[in-house]
Amino acid sequence: MTTHQLALKVRWSEADPAGIVFYPRFFEWFDLATEALFEAVGLPWPVIFPQHRIVGVPIVESGARFVSPVRYGDEVTVRSTVTDIKTRTFRIEHEIAVGSTRCATGFEVRAWVSVPAHPGAPLRSKPIPEEIAMTLKGKQRP
Amino acid sequence: MTTHQLALKVRWSEADPAGIVFYPRFFEWFDLATEALFEAVGLPWPVIFPQHRIVGVPIVESGARFVSPVRYGDEVTVRSTVTDIKTRTFRIEHEIAVGSTRCATGFEVRAWVSVPAHPGAPLRSKPIPEEIAMTLKGKQRP
Amino acid sequence: MTTHQLALKVRWSEADPAGIVFYPRFFEWFDLATEALFEAVGLPWPVIFPQHRIVGVPIVESGARFVSPVRYGDEVTVRSTVTDIKTRTFRIEHEIAVGSTRCATGFEVRAWVSVPAHPGAPLRSKPIPEEIAMTLKGKQRP
Amino acid sequence: MTTHQLALKVRWSEADPAGIVFYPRFFEWFDLATEALFEAVGLPWPVIFPQHRIVGVPIVESGARFVSPVRYGDEVTVRSTVTDIKTRTFRIEHEIAVGSTRCATGFEVRAWVSVPAHPGAPLRSKPIPEEIAMTLKGKQRP
Repeated sequence: MTTHQLALKVRWSEADPAGIVFYPRFFEWFDLATEALFEAVGLPWPVIFPQHRIVGVPIVESGARFVSPVRYGDEVTVRSTVTDIKTRTFRIEHEIAVGSTRCATGFEVRAWVSVPAHPGAPLRSKPIPEEIAMTLKGKQRP
Repeated sequence: MTTHQLALKVRWSEADPAGIVFYPRFFEWFDLATEALFEAVGLPWPVIFPQHRIVGVPIVESGARFVSPVRYGDEVTVRSTVTDIKTRTFRIEHEIAVGSTRCATGFEVRAWVSVPAHPGAPLRSKPIPEEIAMTLKGKQRP
Repeated sequence: MTTHQLALKVRWSEADPAGIVFYPRFFEWFDLATEALFEAVGLPWPVIFPQHRIVGVPIVESGARFVSPVRYGDEVTVRSTVTDIKTRTFRIEHEIAVGSTRCATGFEVRAWVSVPAHPGAPLRSKPIPEEIAMTLKGKQRP
Repeated sequence: MTTHQLALKVRWSEADPAGIVFYPRFFEWFDLATEALFEAVGLPWPVIFPQHRIVGVPIVESGARFVSPVRYGDEVTVRSTVTDIKTRTFRIEHEIAVGSTRCATGFEVRAWVSVPAHPGAPLRSKPIPEEIAMTLKGKQRP
């Protein structure tokens, strides 16, 4: 399965009055890391979303454990791995570290969701195209 | 256990180019809802954090399932319930709805964390004071 | 001209490690205050944007002076006044206060911008409909 | 005077339901660009703020003109120039472009503000140290 590593610097705006990163920012980093993984395997979102007529890959489920605080000025790495691909959804696991200190681990389950027939219409998932699934698995088509 | 309901209007800045709320915003709403619950039971954060010499109640673990998208213009309710109080941590469960449609469910586990001896020093949890635990449980002291 | 006042509580996520509100948040409050003013005069954005086939009222120019810091826990009021309406743009001035302390003043010039023919096409302003201009001026049509 | 250029990719979370970047994000970019300029001249904020016992360099005044929208997927450059240094404040001008298209111009005036005697005490500016002023001017001390 595909793995990718993203380096980020903590922004002033991401830390709170306690001097540590406000926890929803970790989920923003998961989102950035998933996007970076797609781009690294040749699937940049701004290209593939309109190409496959999907609104994006919205979240179905997500969660995280926070073990060590991250502070303003820290350089963060987010290591992301595709761990499961189902017909309409996929799972990515993330590990956030500052140097050798693991600060958080988490996951995202995301769906492949069609552009609706008209704005505001219900959103429906559709099957992940085989070439996308193969690429995320890190396999080349025969 | 204590339950509280918070009403929120979706902000323009909270929805993304797909027209739906960017998922880390749900965790920001969990945070706001937890803060509102504390205030509703007479424990406003701006008062109790300095009073008890804690940096706040940082997150230890959090997670959510997303079942229906939320859009700009929606009026959201977040129903929050304290479901568990341990020595140094507590758990709050949240349900996000638009009208009668349940959009997401999630939880937070948070710790009671001391102000460090000096800025940047390691953060340490300490026991939740009994009167705080009693209040969150919705019980009055005998 | 129309005036409106919005009350806001400073969110934990809006304050930075210096303990004061991160300055771009003031512009987010200007945006919320403009939206609230429109709603107060019967022009809610989620209704009028699709109705008039506009993408919204994007900013042409904005600016602010910051005179006193705002902190987590503060209750903020944003007093907004429509001060000028031109053919395709309008100007709103904002004053942010905590109690009787004026913390910031600023302004926004916004345009009335059509939904483009297709996604990604250049954005073009169009004339503000007379009934919108009249409403923002606080006048009733004869 | 010192000039610096920062490259940024527009984040999914920075664009709004109109598909364009929400305008307060431009001020966040100004902030990031100012921080990057300081770092480029050997004055990283996480080091100099505690070293000089300042809470940071809070904004006194800021403004921007927006001439062309920025979209999700765009690669942005922020070109920043220190244009004035006074005793207690300095001014930085920013230009935001996507390729050869100028999208916005703006400025920030910031003050050199002491860490207060105790948390919550009034914030006071103090003179910018000469070596800081010299470095921002791009001059070396004799």
